[in-house]
Amino acid sequence: MTDAPLDLSLDAAALTARLVDFPSESGNEKPLADAIEQALRTLPHLEVDRYGNNVVARTRLGLAERVILAGHIDTVPIADNVPSRLDDNGILWGCGTTDMKGGVALQLRMAATVTRPNRDLTFVFYDNEEVAAHLNGLGHIADARPDWLEGDFAVLLEGTYAEVEGGCQGTLRVLLRTSGERAHSARGWMGSNAIHKAAPILAALAAYEPKRTVIDGLEYREGLNAVRVEAGVANNVIPDACTVTVNFRYAPDRSQADAIAHVREVFADCDIAEFVVDDHSGAAMPGLSHPAAAAFMEAVGGSPKPKFGWTDVARFSALGIPAVNYGPGDPIFAHKRDEHVEVAKIHHCEERLHAWLTT
Amino acid sequence: MTDAPLDLSLDAAALTARLVDFPSESGNEKPLADAIEQALRTLPHLEVDRYGNNVVARTRLGLAERVILAGHIDTVPIADNVPSRLDDNGILWGCGTTDMKGGVALQLRMAATVTRPNRDLTFVFYDNEEVAAHLNGLGHIADARPDWLEGDFAVLLEGTYAEVEGGCQGTLRVLLRTSGERAHSARGWMGSNAIHKAAPILAALAAYEPKRTVIDGLEYREGLNAVRVEAGVANNVIPDACTVTVNFRYAPDRSQADAIAHVREVFADCDIAEFVVDDHSGAAMPGLSHPAAAAFMEAVGGSPKPKFGWTDVARFSALGIPAVNYGPGDPIFAHKRDEHVEVAKIHHCEERLHAWLTT
Repeated sequence: MTDAPLDLSLDAAALTARLVDFPSESGNEKPLADAIEQALRTLPHLEVDRYGNNVVARTRLGLAERVILAGHIDTVPIADNVPSRLDDNGILWGCGTTDMKGGVALQLRMAATVTRPNRDLTFVFYDNEEVAAHLNGLGHIADARPDWLEGDFAVLLEGTYAEVEGGCQGTLRVLLRTSGERAHSARGWMGSNAIHKAAPILAALAAYEPKRTVIDGLEYREGLNAVRVEAGVANNVIPDACTVTVNFRYAPDRSQADAIAHVREVFADCDIAEFVVDDHSGAAMPGLSHPAAAAFMEAVGGSPKPKFGWTDVARFSALGIPAVNYGPGDPIFAHKRDEHVEVAKIHHCEERLHAWLTT
Repeated sequence: MTDAPLDLSLDAAALTARLVDFPSESGNEKPLADAIEQALRTLPHLEVDRYGNNVVARTRLGLAERVILAGHIDTVPIADNVPSRLDDNGILWGCGTTDMKGGVALQLRMAATVTRPNRDLTFVFYDNEEVAAHLNGLGHIADARPDWLEGDFAVLLEGTYAEVEGGCQGTLRVLLRTSGERAHSARGWMGSNAIHKAAPILAALAAYEPKRTVIDGLEYREGLNAVRVEAGVANNVIPDACTVTVNFRYAPDRSQADAIAHVREVFADCDIAEFVVDDHSGAAMPGLSHPAAAAFMEAVGGSPKPKFGWTDVARFSALGIPAVNYGPGDPIFAHKRDEHVEVAKIHHCEERLHAWLTT
């Protein structure tokens, strides 16, 4: 079954089911990338390129505007939820239905059916989105084949429950380390307790009032949270080190440098021994004021929402390409055993995208 | 070598070296218990009993007072520090020199040389002191053969650097758990951060002012410390649970119930979801006002010190027997690779103990 070619004449919901039944956990995307490449190469209006397990297909019509439709083809590990199952209520269940084979099916359907688009089209199918950032296929293409990603506007077909979600917030992870001196806990006064020294850090976190920021009409909500705290040598030892891991989610009006400076300021009086930036992915502006984005909004309808989580739209933003998230799945069910998508949402998105690219 | 009988005619320092060269890590005390029993059975003035790998020897002279000399025969794991080595400065190096084969050698020397004591004598040699409390041989004797431990006063020959250390502080370990609600850290406002909820706990610890308490002229110093803190689900999840492990070391004027009540009170306003008593060993009063203790102090000289760490004197205290710590080793070097004892301190203690029991 998994070796059968992909039939792009299926409607987008049936094609979603077909893709879910074609396992492609991160690191094992090659068979699906092969099938996608093979299917796209049968379409004479597209030029197809491949880099690793990433496939890019483009029209070359010389139109005034070029838009990108992008999606990752990997999934998180299957959790007894493959093959897919369509129930009597029009719900398709299975690993990747929301995140994001419903979106990949829409990319493939647009590639197959929009043979005479009103804008030049670039389809990007990439691997390893669900794992460490340095493995991300979109990042690899941006590094090695940046010309493949040229365009005026990008739609990332991550699940948004068929709403446009603009830009994305940045995410910064910092390790805040306090330092003390070990001693036997029976003679605690001979040491200095690094956990007690973390008290002002937790107090600053508990008192922190996150900002709300409106950009292009979208209200972003920041957040500063401890996600881990670790200390302890033995049950009778005053610990000499404590690490509080904080995660700052920030609105797109902050640069990465601004975000780091802000976190430093919040903890400026906390006697931090070491401040380590452990991970950082910048925010993406919604870019809804761009004419291509406005045309997209008009075609798909509804009112745009801010994207709170970090997504690969930030990679487009870093390349200077405004980008939004738009896909049929409900993101609340991503990575869950009961992941599912409403067939009606797939059909709705298919119809709206088709209208955008053809009328 | 380890099968040779123990020669109790050696001086206490030479006997200490002999005992160090006779490995007896916790759980492997049988050969040494056998050798001790065998050596004691050659002494006609003593009645010898055995329970497991615990050996008890007693005079039966019907004297007005009975004193107990107790010591554990196990050591922590050997760390390339056996066999023992006597250097040119009169320092004996090796595992157990301080903790506490120097003390055990003194017990054996008193058993062999004080054949006509001024007080009835009980010698207790027990196993498994360095491991979990429920394995402790002194506890096993107290449970199964409490009559073997009858007496008016006890000396535990743990290393005190030849000072009398009175009683011991209690040690209480409590887990303080806060509770929140998980959420993705990109939408932190949908959850409740259990680490942030621990802020008042750390603040209370940082602000805590430990009490000093004078009992029988000894100043005890309490301490309340976090020894561990643990929380974290994933780097992008608001954690729903945080555990702060605190260790309360308290003076002998507090009962175990008082100690728990005090810790509850310190954290009363901290919104603790769960308060778990994880481990608890009560304190021991120094008992220096007892006539037998006073006579002991007069014989050994010096001024008594408080014992901050928990020791098995608390087991005697629980049996209603005043007890002190007195031994040649410096406790700072216990459990260390460079563990050692000064031969002069062994000889000093031997002479003082002998004087106490004979004049």
